[in-house]
Amino acid sequence: MVQLALRSCFLRPSRLSLRFFSPNMRPLTLDAVNPQLLEVQYAVRGELAIKAELYRDQLKKGDSLPFDKVISSNIGNPQQKGLDQPAITFTRQVAALTEWPALADLAPGVFPADVVARARELYAEIGSIGAYSHSQGVPLIRQSVAKFIEERDGFPAHPDDIFLTAGASAGVSLLINMLITDPTSGILIPIPQYPLYTATLAQHHGRPIPYLLDESSGWSTSIESITAALAAARKDGTVPKALVIINPGNPTGALLDAATMEALVRLCEEHSLVLLADEVYQNNLHAPAAHPFTSFKKVVSQLRSPVPLVSFHSISKGVSGECGRRGGYFELANVPADVRALVYKLVSVGLCPPLAGQIGVDSMVRPPRAGEPSYALWKKETDTIHAALRERTHVMATRLSALPGVSCVESPGALYLFPKIELSAKAVEAARAAGKEPDAFYALALLDETGICVVPGSGFGQKEGEWHYRLTCLCPGVEEYVGKLERFHLGFVKKYE
Amino acid sequence: MVQLALRSCFLRPSRLSLRFFSPNMRPLTLDAVNPQLLEVQYAVRGELAIKAELYRDQLKKGDSLPFDKVISSNIGNPQQKGLDQPAITFTRQVAALTEWPALADLAPGVFPADVVARARELYAEIGSIGAYSHSQGVPLIRQSVAKFIEERDGFPAHPDDIFLTAGASAGVSLLINMLITDPTSGILIPIPQYPLYTATLAQHHGRPIPYLLDESSGWSTSIESITAALAAARKDGTVPKALVIINPGNPTGALLDAATMEALVRLCEEHSLVLLADEVYQNNLHAPAAHPFTSFKKVVSQLRSPVPLVSFHSISKGVSGECGRRGGYFELANVPADVRALVYKLVSVGLCPPLAGQIGVDSMVRPPRAGEPSYALWKKETDTIHAALRERTHVMATRLSALPGVSCVESPGALYLFPKIELSAKAVEAARAAGKEPDAFYALALLDETGICVVPGSGFGQKEGEWHYRLTCLCPGVEEYVGKLERFHLGFVKKYE
Repeated sequence: MVQLALRSCFLRPSRLSLRFFSPNMRPLTLDAVNPQLLEVQYAVRGELAIKAELYRDQLKKGDSLPFDKVISSNIGNPQQKGLDQPAITFTRQVAALTEWPALADLAPGVFPADVVARARELYAEIGSIGAYSHSQGVPLIRQSVAKFIEERDGFPAHPDDIFLTAGASAGVSLLINMLITDPTSGILIPIPQYPLYTATLAQHHGRPIPYLLDESSGWSTSIESITAALAAARKDGTVPKALVIINPGNPTGALLDAATMEALVRLCEEHSLVLLADEVYQNNLHAPAAHPFTSFKKVVSQLRSPVPLVSFHSISKGVSGECGRRGGYFELANVPADVRALVYKLVSVGLCPPLAGQIGVDSMVRPPRAGEPSYALWKKETDTIHAALRERTHVMATRLSALPGVSCVESPGALYLFPKIELSAKAVEAARAAGKEPDAFYALALLDETGICVVPGSGFGQKEGEWHYRLTCLCPGVEEYVGKLERFHLGFVKKYE
Repeated sequence: MVQLALRSCFLRPSRLSLRFFSPNMRPLTLDAVNPQLLEVQYAVRGELAIKAELYRDQLKKGDSLPFDKVISSNIGNPQQKGLDQPAITFTRQVAALTEWPALADLAPGVFPADVVARARELYAEIGSIGAYSHSQGVPLIRQSVAKFIEERDGFPAHPDDIFLTAGASAGVSLLINMLITDPTSGILIPIPQYPLYTATLAQHHGRPIPYLLDESSGWSTSIESITAALAAARKDGTVPKALVIINPGNPTGALLDAATMEALVRLCEEHSLVLLADEVYQNNLHAPAAHPFTSFKKVVSQLRSPVPLVSFHSISKGVSGECGRRGGYFELANVPADVRALVYKLVSVGLCPPLAGQIGVDSMVRPPRAGEPSYALWKKETDTIHAALRERTHVMATRLSALPGVSCVESPGALYLFPKIELSAKAVEAARAAGKEPDAFYALALLDETGICVVPGSGFGQKEGEWHYRLTCLCPGVEEYVGKLERFHLGFVKKYE
């Protein structure tokens, strides 16, 4: 039986049986599923990313293409193949010891003393990382997160208000699910935005209330554009529930100044909005002196504002870049205990966040300190990552801006650039003929010619009649990389002039 | 600033600011959140589990209680502290090497050759486990899962139909979200059930359609009870979408025979139902000769049935017991390509399952084979776990059944027993006076007196007027453990006779 099955492996039962499948007997077709889910759009892993994977497979098989490698600049995934941003050694050493504690004795001298001590401390608290933890996250690690927040902001934080998560996305999805009480509920979303927000709103049948960021002033956030969006939303019967702020911005990389943050908190007070602060790029700063990061938790605490605040952080970005561990946390402030209990009940249905992610959060908020054995290497590794990102961002922004019809804000934070591209009437026409958004048409041509995968601005939202794309600043060999972008752009302009 | 903050750490901003919070200015209160979420109930981590955690903290602080340790029998968490079911060494050795690949050379001879080879193979495919993988899961690991299914069933399986997940729960939640198209949509749920199903249905505003399992015949599943439930549901305007089968059963441990499985597939054909097969305990069999496991994938394939089938598996149970990694998968059969593409789009919004969980799935479906260096230890470890579970299940079922007013089906599978307890009118009265379900009242008294945390039957559903509780068969020192249960029960009976 097994032999036969393996021989006929290409004969898939689904194929087979669908032949016997009478249409009126199909309980699982697109028109039979939750219609809200059909509305979900997530461009970061959309058409272009899927096509990039196909190209990667073709190259593996040895097919000849116009390029010898696919460069996935569509997603902030620092450690992916081809980018290979090294993992922080301390993080991985601690993780390896929590996976197999006996290693400390089996490989004496291989692990620094502070790594062994950290792993033992975690083991004493957690026991096996193969066990479910507290649904809210390991208490010791939540204490470390609270301490990290207190040292960052100079205001108290409490472990009971911290929820460890499987990356920031899981927390955002939970909160949006909580805040959407009926189909008239709306949430203010920056445009351009990270599409997680509109995707999750679609999934939970809520309405995005878009407010425009101002590219001409470095993608700044203005109170005027938000109040205008609120007025428009109320006019068409939408009930605003929350304000999403991404700081540092994604895809823009912009950083909010203190005055704007205070005004935003006051605006939330005035309009009774929950403030959802996506701060996952808080440690990706290219000019921290001129553009420092301030958390909304700090501003809300300074103002003693009653605004309910949920702040999201992640181990996927920053210098950690541990996307695959799925780790992060959110902190609740000004949230009543009964609502916090509801959040606990909801996360408990999912049992607990991945322990590998929780351990990663611990390493992020408790890195080696000066004087500890692992400090020198940790300092060297993190300085190198910061410097490389700063340098690439500068080179790319400068050279892209020098291209005809391209302007690019040099972002002070995050991992991306979001250049604006002018497209000729001829190019727009060709795009429409191909049934594509013009910037998607541009991005597809870029992928087909260079193997570079970016995300068209239409996936993030942009002003009517403007076109952009988002690309990461993570690629090594910036010369070769930018060179390819330049050659492609000049060729594209020529082709459609 | 920081110093002051740390000194005043007990002064929490939420407390502070709530004093200035005018009631009409509270955007985040229980009556302002998604009302569906208030309906979510998840007894496995409910009132009893929370109280057990408090007792654990008190014991840590050195408080004196009637017991010296808390035993968490409320959840199938084999590796938790106090149970300490050892992790499979092969799994952890591979995981440690994927965390820090340099270890293979830094600690020569510490890792068996097959472990090193497996870790290298995974690294060559995945690269860093700190990177996001394909949203559906690492292709190589999905191929291994497909091969595992083919060897188990003798029918073809295809990697494109496999979705790796963060434990089975994540997949169940996704599928229920897809199947609930409006508030009249219903899903057939066994009673007793694992409360994940009703919790997820509440969250997505769907209706459970309960069908009763028959305790008198070893918790068997009957077509009659399901057709009766379907008729009742249709009468009150519920539209049945899917049938949930948990095999081996949770909390019952019952195993379906081939004839029943065929009849269930035919029933799904007749009533146009999607079949959701929760098979996470497929490797927890106490009498495999008499009660073997057969997958629904195999039955559907044998019958060449067109029934859409989603089969769930997990690394949290079986002999793996790796709950904390959050790993599992589901397989789609008879699901059209466009629906599969929608599932892909939805999982891509969450980026990818935890890599530690994916690596764990690989170790579960590709364990060491006879002749490989790690085989002997793997065999010894897994045999020991199987034997201990079988022995404990037998001892506990026998001795609990011997108690006055207790009857307990000796389950052939899974990790639990679900004894029925007769409670005197006086006990029921006392429970009502305390505002508790009688079995919750019993379980609370058990926790208060012995430190043993179980889940009352009311958390899983049971026949009107019957009372049960679920406890795991994972506790070491079965004599001491059962002894405590016996002494408590006899005392409780005496107290309320």
